[in-house]
Amino acid sequence: MSAEGEGEALRLGTGGEFDRLRAIFASLGAAARGLGDDCALVRIGTRTLALSIDLSLEGVHFRTDWLSFREIGWRATAAALSDLAAEGAKPIGVLASVGLPGRGRGRGKGRRDPATEIMSGVGAAARSVGASVLGGDLVRSSRYLVDVCALGFAQRPVRRSGARPGDGLWVTGRLGGAGLALRALAARRRVPPALRRRFAHPVPRIAAGVWLARHGARAMIDVSDGLTGDASHLAAASGVRVEIALEHMLCWPGATPLAAVRSGEEYELLVALPTRFGERHAGAFRRAIGLPLTRIGACTAGRGVRITDDGRPITPPRSFDHFPRR
Amino acid sequence: MSAEGEGEALRLGTGGEFDRLRAIFASLGAAARGLGDDCALVRIGTRTLALSIDLSLEGVHFRTDWLSFREIGWRATAAALSDLAAEGAKPIGVLASVGLPGRGRGRGKGRRDPATEIMSGVGAAARSVGASVLGGDLVRSSRYLVDVCALGFAQRPVRRSGARPGDGLWVTGRLGGAGLALRALAARRRVPPALRRRFAHPVPRIAAGVWLARHGARAMIDVSDGLTGDASHLAAASGVRVEIALEHMLCWPGATPLAAVRSGEEYELLVALPTRFGERHAGAFRRAIGLPLTRIGACTAGRGVRITDDGRPITPPRSFDHFPRR
Repeated sequence: MSAEGEGEALRLGTGGEFDRLRAIFASLGAAARGLGDDCALVRIGTRTLALSIDLSLEGVHFRTDWLSFREIGWRATAAALSDLAAEGAKPIGVLASVGLPGRGRGRGKGRRDPATEIMSGVGAAARSVGASVLGGDLVRSSRYLVDVCALGFAQRPVRRSGARPGDGLWVTGRLGGAGLALRALAARRRVPPALRRRFAHPVPRIAAGVWLARHGARAMIDVSDGLTGDASHLAAASGVRVEIALEHMLCWPGATPLAAVRSGEEYELLVALPTRFGERHAGAFRRAIGLPLTRIGACTAGRGVRITDDGRPITPPRSFDHFPRR
Repeated sequence: MSAEGEGEALRLGTGGEFDRLRAIFASLGAAARGLGDDCALVRIGTRTLALSIDLSLEGVHFRTDWLSFREIGWRATAAALSDLAAEGAKPIGVLASVGLPGRGRGRGKGRRDPATEIMSGVGAAARSVGASVLGGDLVRSSRYLVDVCALGFAQRPVRRSGARPGDGLWVTGRLGGAGLALRALAARRRVPPALRRRFAHPVPRIAAGVWLARHGARAMIDVSDGLTGDASHLAAASGVRVEIALEHMLCWPGATPLAAVRSGEEYELLVALPTRFGERHAGAFRRAIGLPLTRIGACTAGRGVRITDDGRPITPPRSFDHFPRR
């Protein structure tokens, strides 16, 4: 399959998972359209429906000794909704498939049914952005799993592919909290409440995404694989080089900039905005949305991701990949 | 939760899975709308979007020694599309999440990547009904899994709840093949090609569903849990009794009527049609769709399912339930 034949939406970053996805796209031929972005887009009359599906598995995305079942449901739903945020879409509903081990497991005396708890987390996350639970499926499974399909409308969909050399590169919120929480949980250290909440109860940046789409966002992606990995997807899809200056990163208290660019499942938005978008606009964003918006770099001619620390180049840290090349 | 408080869409049949779903619906409160039917319905302008999600798991819904990976993808997609058929909807696209064990497993020398094979089955099933693969997710998992969310438009959505006493009860195609194939596979007996195809390559009854919706269908459901179980969902949702005469069942060659009413994953349509719909209309259906449409019973005042064999009542066989009450 030639690079030209792949089409815009198939230009993904590097990694075993993306090699595999490329082979899959090739096999699908005419049936696949627009694959490889945060959301699928379907035109319905004058409106554009944005759809995303996101699978969360026990042992891969969550552990039942780290999160309550309600948090597991919330987090899986927030992950799917975050893809809609990165499209500038407003969610309307979610459908969730839930897999549950047999009765003996994870269901102590007096505790509520894990299925009910998971779905109440799904419902709470949906409600938090004005969406409904539209449907679901419930199946006995060897491990817990939650797969969420989210849908919404995008007035002006923002793809990964619209960044141009000269655009500024901005990120919402503070990065590094999710990675910090993960390390503390793995080391069985106490996790401070704010950090725990950041990890267990991520807030999909819907309002931020809609605001940025309205204010000229050219390309957008949510930070799920880690800033470096997601920046490389944006760079590949847009055909630009992305340059990130570590010293400009706004980090979670206690997280270093290098740890922050590596931290996955942050669910903040990485966005390319035209040069005219400046600190004055970032101030308006902060007043409207209640979140910082920080310029961490720029798009230039070229390809890939270049990270610098006070001007010195840094080797980009590897992002999480479900299917690493060995 | 009172029976009145459940709302129309929550009146499901009996079984542990449905008890569990009821508790979940209760916990969701206002976020849930229209749960419990084959599809969720979302009004968009003048059109109605129908959505369904269907999770297929290795060891529960399929075995990799019984089906090829392509067939696993086809079957999972056909199951989700079958829900759209039962709504009278025309599919436009699917999103699929795929879980895959590590490289060591299921990937012999010279064989294609299971992920590619599964997705090519998903794509083929989607294309067969004029739909596209819109998106997906790919995750490393302990066992294979395929979760498919299907969406389409319903010009005149047919719910489970519209059947009235006096309506005739009809079913498309021939039942019992899937159960017959399953028993042969479990006993390691040879499966004749036509029977194997029926099991491995089910055809979602999209054209049939659209035709029936246009010709007055009052209530419709696809035969996935087994005719008895699905008839009990339709009876509960509509507030009627469903009476089925075994001697009128059109069965797969070699399947007894009693085995045919028990056989799940048939993906035929069970439909309530007004009394005026007669054999002449069934003839028109057969000519248009190329499938038999057989009157197997009627809806009467009352509740539950009553099965008779030449007038003698038969105890309804249990349907498959992922969460049986013990």
